[in-house]
Amino acid sequence: MLYNRKAWKHVFKLDPAKSLTSDQIREVCQSGTDAIVVGGTDNVTLEGVINLLSQIRMYSIPCVLEVSTVDAITPGFDFYDIPIVLNSQEKKWVLDAQHQAIKQFGPMIDWSELTTEGYVILNPEAKAYQLTNCYLPDREDVIAYAQMAEQMFNLPILYLEYSGTYGDPELVRQVKQHLNKTQLVYGGGITTLEQAKEMAQYADTIVVGNSLYDNFAESIETVHVKK
Amino acid sequence: MLYNRKAWKHVFKLDPAKSLTSDQIREVCQSGTDAIVVGGTDNVTLEGVINLLSQIRMYSIPCVLEVSTVDAITPGFDFYDIPIVLNSQEKKWVLDAQHQAIKQFGPMIDWSELTTEGYVILNPEAKAYQLTNCYLPDREDVIAYAQMAEQMFNLPILYLEYSGTYGDPELVRQVKQHLNKTQLVYGGGITTLEQAKEMAQYADTIVVGNSLYDNFAESIETVHVKK
Repeated sequence: MLYNRKAWKHVFKLDPAKSLTSDQIREVCQSGTDAIVVGGTDNVTLEGVINLLSQIRMYSIPCVLEVSTVDAITPGFDFYDIPIVLNSQEKKWVLDAQHQAIKQFGPMIDWSELTTEGYVILNPEAKAYQLTNCYLPDREDVIAYAQMAEQMFNLPILYLEYSGTYGDPELVRQVKQHLNKTQLVYGGGITTLEQAKEMAQYADTIVVGNSLYDNFAESIETVHVKK
Repeated sequence: MLYNRKAWKHVFKLDPAKSLTSDQIREVCQSGTDAIVVGGTDNVTLEGVINLLSQIRMYSIPCVLEVSTVDAITPGFDFYDIPIVLNSQEKKWVLDAQHQAIKQFGPMIDWSELTTEGYVILNPEAKAYQLTNCYLPDREDVIAYAQMAEQMFNLPILYLEYSGTYGDPELVRQVKQHLNKTQLVYGGGITTLEQAKEMAQYADTIVVGNSLYDNFAESIETVHVKK
């Protein structure tokens, strides 16, 4: 792909199980954000993904599918992000689900479009945390995951996910100090430009998602973090 | 480190829990092999590792510690290989043991000396297979692990381990076809030069270990695979 993901400072994440109006999707795509990520945890269906993709594709903006279920994979995205949940307590969410998908679809995969994301999910109330049976890591645990991501697995992305709640900027700052090649993505609870600016001091990329569905106008303003 | 591991065709693996005479260790080190790996599964102690290292260090040959327990790590090796067991059924052997070691020793680690090895253990009778609670993958499973190793985790090494038994050359051949950057290492049951040659057709590197303790003279002859 032609896009330099490393340069993305701000992305919006749209949930295929939730809805925005056509005007809102246009506004998101033309907001000046660097990319749109399509992803969710509950009720992600192929129909929902295709419906959202077709609306986003009306605009000239990079579009990423974050794969949560193989049933909802469809062609037409620029990238396919494969999460591995580092703080899950089950091998299923680190290797096995991904392994089964590769076993099934290996010959069809264009590896240049696939990006592995090391997730650390830090909000015990989040659906993804509960689905993947995570434990809550302490500060040293998270830093050790960052070192593994960069040094052992050469992961392109480490994703600190506070899904639904605003995280700890000090932890994000400390994790960033241990990463050089691996891109640090922060997501969770960003509803205002001030929060976006705070996390963008440390994270390479911030993800704004849920707040689009709660307070659309203020959420859109977070793109000004890029200035 | 100065050594180009990619160029290693043949290595001997010495078990710190087993013994060779000083003359035999000299012969191993001066055999023309590319490197010595120190590693084992049962009864690996710090004392045993240091004792073996000090004998190997009398000769000018690269020396690798394959880390099976953090208690037996000592300075002085050129490389430290960290196995992750892809076909283990427990997350412990994929991520958790390694994560705990990094959490404990992170600030002391020289990452340039550390190499992550993706293991697939293929002999159900092997101690390592039982210790790490593996399942026996089929051909497509192994190929999918190879693709994960190279494409998702950018692992420098994929290690097909038949420990104690001679493996399936056809599987090694097929796995090699799916690897470009990741180095394919084969270990298990090589007791003769003919077997060494057969596996070296497909694997980038072959490991000869147990046979040193069973039939030393014939085992040493396997280095001629390099010619």
